[in-house]
Amino acid sequence: MNQGHTEAEPESSEPLRYLSKVEAAAIETELLKDYRFGQQQLIEIWGHACAIGIAKAFPLRSLGKRQPTVLVVCGPDQNGCIGLVCARHLRMFEYEPTIFYPKRSPHTVHQDFTVQCEKMDIPFLSYLPTEVQLINDAYNLVVDAILGPETDPADMREPYAGILLTLKQVKIPIASLDMPSGWHVEGNNTEGINPDVLISLMAPKKCAASFPGKHFLAGRFLPFDLQRKYELNLPEYSGTDCLVEL
Amino acid sequence: MNQGHTEAEPESSEPLRYLSKVEAAAIETELLKDYRFGQQQLIEIWGHACAIGIAKAFPLRSLGKRQPTVLVVCGPDQNGCIGLVCARHLRMFEYEPTIFYPKRSPHTVHQDFTVQCEKMDIPFLSYLPTEVQLINDAYNLVVDAILGPETDPADMREPYAGILLTLKQVKIPIASLDMPSGWHVEGNNTEGINPDVLISLMAPKKCAASFPGKHFLAGRFLPFDLQRKYELNLPEYSGTDCLVEL
Repeated sequence: MNQGHTEAEPESSEPLRYLSKVEAAAIETELLKDYRFGQQQLIEIWGHACAIGIAKAFPLRSLGKRQPTVLVVCGPDQNGCIGLVCARHLRMFEYEPTIFYPKRSPHTVHQDFTVQCEKMDIPFLSYLPTEVQLINDAYNLVVDAILGPETDPADMREPYAGILLTLKQVKIPIASLDMPSGWHVEGNNTEGINPDVLISLMAPKKCAASFPGKHFLAGRFLPFDLQRKYELNLPEYSGTDCLVEL
Repeated sequence: MNQGHTEAEPESSEPLRYLSKVEAAAIETELLKDYRFGQQQLIEIWGHACAIGIAKAFPLRSLGKRQPTVLVVCGPDQNGCIGLVCARHLRMFEYEPTIFYPKRSPHTVHQDFTVQCEKMDIPFLSYLPTEVQLINDAYNLVVDAILGPETDPADMREPYAGILLTLKQVKIPIASLDMPSGWHVEGNNTEGINPDVLISLMAPKKCAASFPGKHFLAGRFLPFDLQRKYELNLPEYSGTDCLVEL
């Protein structure tokens, strides 16, 4: 019989690894090229896990407003698509997501995720109010699915710089997917937005090492070989959970 | 604000709908064509939910054998691919799946799912022992991911007829994905295999109406409009659960 079980366990005595930008990109490339994971598949796994993380951090019964509204702000690339999937699952979990997706990706895979949300009658905002009080009043929280580790904050263009300026002022909690938008992957980020919840995907990025809020790790699908190769030292997930609090 | 919440709830007072073959196919076509879900995405969602169902029905600590072995038998089409994804997630949940996949699909999407399992060192059997005692001794249970509702039992070819004959004789429990292989979607199936657990996907098929074993419904992603259009009257899922016991 298959005897590989005990040696296949990741080591847990070593400290959790926080990834550089290059390492995060290398792992994703290896997943797509060598392990033949699909982009659509990964985005679905990640978005689903993020929705579960948000439901854990902000249970329906804990929300202050009469309606369980959530504003999901989606960026132009993969992080934005993870936000779309997250919004769709939040809808299934009885939340009322509203999406702000100012620049839509031209990729078919990304467009498909957009159509899924549109066809499920999830409303899309045509602009983000600059009056932050309107956001504070209308939503229980904001999901930040704007920029992932692939984006250098120095290259950030409008409308994202303006959106992040608005998000720095909102009083309702922010949950960031993979990493807080606008932060340097490896830097010190005292100037950026200040999310209450962070859901790191695959493994946390270096910038998350000093994150003071509620921090989840999500995406329980990384092959054990890859975990070992990059010495990720991931914590143990419980039962069939797809995320774990760090 | 979005006021659609209460009216978007599916009705739960009407009885759960059991689908005909035509209805099951129509819902899937609508998901793929109109809602722009991807095949890869659906198979990932379903396989993941099936693995969770199996872990619920057969928790690691409940398994009789020293190693948490599971034999996953995969058919040539979509049901087989759901089995591949299920096996991969079972591996993440610390089970030791072994796959028997005698006829591999030529579709790229399906091949990708195969590579993912191979690269995760999940063993593939080159043949199924005809001596059922070998199966009873080696595995804790069998996952039947052979044939879905699209296959007419009358068209069943080898090696599947022989495999089902073997599975009719095994003494360890069988968990069937979507429907028990070899059963008529809408028929009375006293002659077929006799699974202990059934994990229906999207909505149960007509043949499941009199299923006497443990019956889960999985795949909590069906747009509410589609649920209403086909009058599915799905039961309520709890919290963020992706499956519910019927």
